[in-house]
Amino acid sequence: MADMFTKIKQASARLRRQANVTPVHTSRTFNEIVGAEVYLKCENFQRVGAFKFRGAFNAISQLSDEQKARGVLTYSSGNHAQAIALAGRLLEVKSTIIMPKNAPAIKRAATESYGATVIDYDPQETTRETLAQALLQENAMTLIPPYDHEDVVAGQGTAALEFHEQVPGLDLLLAPCGGGGLLSGTAVATKNVAPQCKVIGIEPELADDATKSFRTKTLHTVHNPPTIADGTRTPSLGKITFPLVLEYVDDMQTVSEAAIIEAVQFLFYRMKLVVEPSGALGIAALLSQAVRTGKRVGVIISGGNIASQTMHTILNSPSAR
Amino acid sequence: MADMFTKIKQASARLRRQANVTPVHTSRTFNEIVGAEVYLKCENFQRVGAFKFRGAFNAISQLSDEQKARGVLTYSSGNHAQAIALAGRLLEVKSTIIMPKNAPAIKRAATESYGATVIDYDPQETTRETLAQALLQENAMTLIPPYDHEDVVAGQGTAALEFHEQVPGLDLLLAPCGGGGLLSGTAVATKNVAPQCKVIGIEPELADDATKSFRTKTLHTVHNPPTIADGTRTPSLGKITFPLVLEYVDDMQTVSEAAIIEAVQFLFYRMKLVVEPSGALGIAALLSQAVRTGKRVGVIISGGNIASQTMHTILNSPSAR
Repeated sequence: MADMFTKIKQASARLRRQANVTPVHTSRTFNEIVGAEVYLKCENFQRVGAFKFRGAFNAISQLSDEQKARGVLTYSSGNHAQAIALAGRLLEVKSTIIMPKNAPAIKRAATESYGATVIDYDPQETTRETLAQALLQENAMTLIPPYDHEDVVAGQGTAALEFHEQVPGLDLLLAPCGGGGLLSGTAVATKNVAPQCKVIGIEPELADDATKSFRTKTLHTVHNPPTIADGTRTPSLGKITFPLVLEYVDDMQTVSEAAIIEAVQFLFYRMKLVVEPSGALGIAALLSQAVRTGKRVGVIISGGNIASQTMHTILNSPSAR
Repeated sequence: MADMFTKIKQASARLRRQANVTPVHTSRTFNEIVGAEVYLKCENFQRVGAFKFRGAFNAISQLSDEQKARGVLTYSSGNHAQAIALAGRLLEVKSTIIMPKNAPAIKRAATESYGATVIDYDPQETTRETLAQALLQENAMTLIPPYDHEDVVAGQGTAALEFHEQVPGLDLLLAPCGGGGLLSGTAVATKNVAPQCKVIGIEPELADDATKSFRTKTLHTVHNPPTIADGTRTPSLGKITFPLVLEYVDDMQTVSEAAIIEAVQFLFYRMKLVVEPSGALGIAALLSQAVRTGKRVGVIISGGNIASQTMHTILNSPSAR
C-alpha cells in the first residue's frame, strides 16, 4: 500500500506547525529492568493530549470548501471527540459530536470548550450510528469516524514517521490497538521507512478482538469489554484498518489489567509522565514480558487523558511485581 | 560573585553525561491564560525526579579520595536524600542519611534502593543536627547539607545555565524557594549569562520566611509550616544562600495553597506532567497573578516526587478559579 504511505507523508506536511512534534523520553531504570534501549514517543504531549489530533486535523483539512461550510460530525466520548473539536476550531469548521448521556461531564466540557456542539443520546434507546445517520441526512454534514477512515489512518501514521526520524534504527515498535487507526498507520509508515523494524500491536487481554482477528484472519468483535484501558473498548477493527493490520503488522500481543496498572504506576512515579491506561499498553507489554524485546525498542505512548478517579485507583493498586 | 559563577560553570562540566539535560515544555493554553510565552524547565525529569541530583553529585565528586573513602552523611527526608544516595552510588562513595522515624516509608525505601544507609531518629528525643554531629565525630564522614553548601548551590545553578542556553532571551525567571539553594544558584547563573532577565523567588504564603528575610534584610525563620509544598518546609535561608539571595534575586513573592493546588492540577490535566507541589510554585504565581508577567518567562519546575495520596487530595480539590 504505497498509496497509504503517500497519504501519510502528505499528512505529515499538512500537520507541520499544527501538531506538536512530541518529545521522546527514556529511562535508565526502565532500560535496566527490560534489558533494552527503550524510547517512548510521548503523544500524551500532543495537542488535546493524544495522537488523535493528527488524524482529525488531517481529515478535516482535506474537505472541500462546501463540505467545510456544512460542518463535520462524529461520535466519540473519548480523545477523538476533543481532536475533532479542536481541529474544527483551527480550520474554522463547525463540529458536532454525538456522545452518550452518561459520558463523563469532564469529557463533555473539554469537547465543548473547543467550540463543538455536543448532542447526547441514551444508549438504552438508540445507537450512535442511527442518530448519526439521521443527523447526516438532515444537515448534510461530513462524518469523520474515529478510526475507519483513510485520512484518519494517514494522520495517525505521522507519529511513527516522526518517531523514526527522531530515533533511527529501531528494531521493534510497540503501539496500542483499539480500532487499529494508530496501529495500521504506524505499521505502514514503519514498513516504508524502517523495514527492519518489527511492529507489534498491544491490546488488553479483556479486549483482545484484534489479536483474535489477526490470528484467525477473520474479524472478531467484543462488546464493551471491562478493561481499564478505555481507549481500546472499540468493538472491532474496521473495514480499512483490518486489512492494513493483516498486511503490515508483524504480531499482536495482549497484556493483563495488572500489567497495565503497573505500567501507569511506573510512568507516573519513575518517569513523571501522566499516561492514560490505553497509552501505557506498550510499557505493560515490556514489563510483563509479553513481547520478546529487541535492542532498540520504540513504544508509542498514545495519550494522557485520565480522570482523577482512575489515576487514584491505579496509584492505590498493589504492584503486579 | 564571579567566584560562584565559576563554580557553576565547573559544576556544569562535571555533570555532563551524569545529569539529564532536562527538556523545556510549553503549552499554548497556558500562554493564552497568562498572556506570555512561558517555558517550563522540567527538572521533574532530572535523575531522582528533582534538581537536587545536580548539587549532590557536584558536591560529592569534589571530595578528596580520603574523604570519599570515609563516606558522606546528610539529613533529609526529601529529594536531597535520594540525590545523595544516587550520587554516592555513581561515585562509589558510601552514603548515610539521617531521616526522622516518621518519614514516609516510600521515601525511605527509595533512598535505600540507591544503596544508602538510613539511620532514623525520633524527633521528640533528639535533633538531626545533634545526631549528625555524633555520627561525624564517630566516623569522620563528610556532611553534605541540603542547601547551605557552596558546591550544592553551584550544582543547582547549572539548571538555569542550561535553561538560558535552551531558551535565549528570557526576561523573567521564576524559581521556587525553600532553603534557597536552587534560587541562589539560579540567580547567580542568570545575572552572569542573561543580565536583562529578572529572577523572582516564589514561596508558599504559609512558609514565607525567605520573602520576609528578603524584604527586611534580616533572617526570618519558620517552624514546620503547614504548606502542601513539602520541599519548602525548611526553617530558613542559610549562611551561604541568604547573602546570595539578597544580592542576586530581584524579588520574592508568595502564593496561596489554593494557587499551588490549581497549578499542580493544570500541570497534570493539561500538560500531562507529574509535578510535586513545591515544583509548581512558579506556575502558581503566574496563574494567580502574584507576579507581573514578562514577554518570555522561564519557570523552573523543580521536581516530581509526589505521594499518591497527595496527588489524590490535589486532584479532588475544587479549582481555585
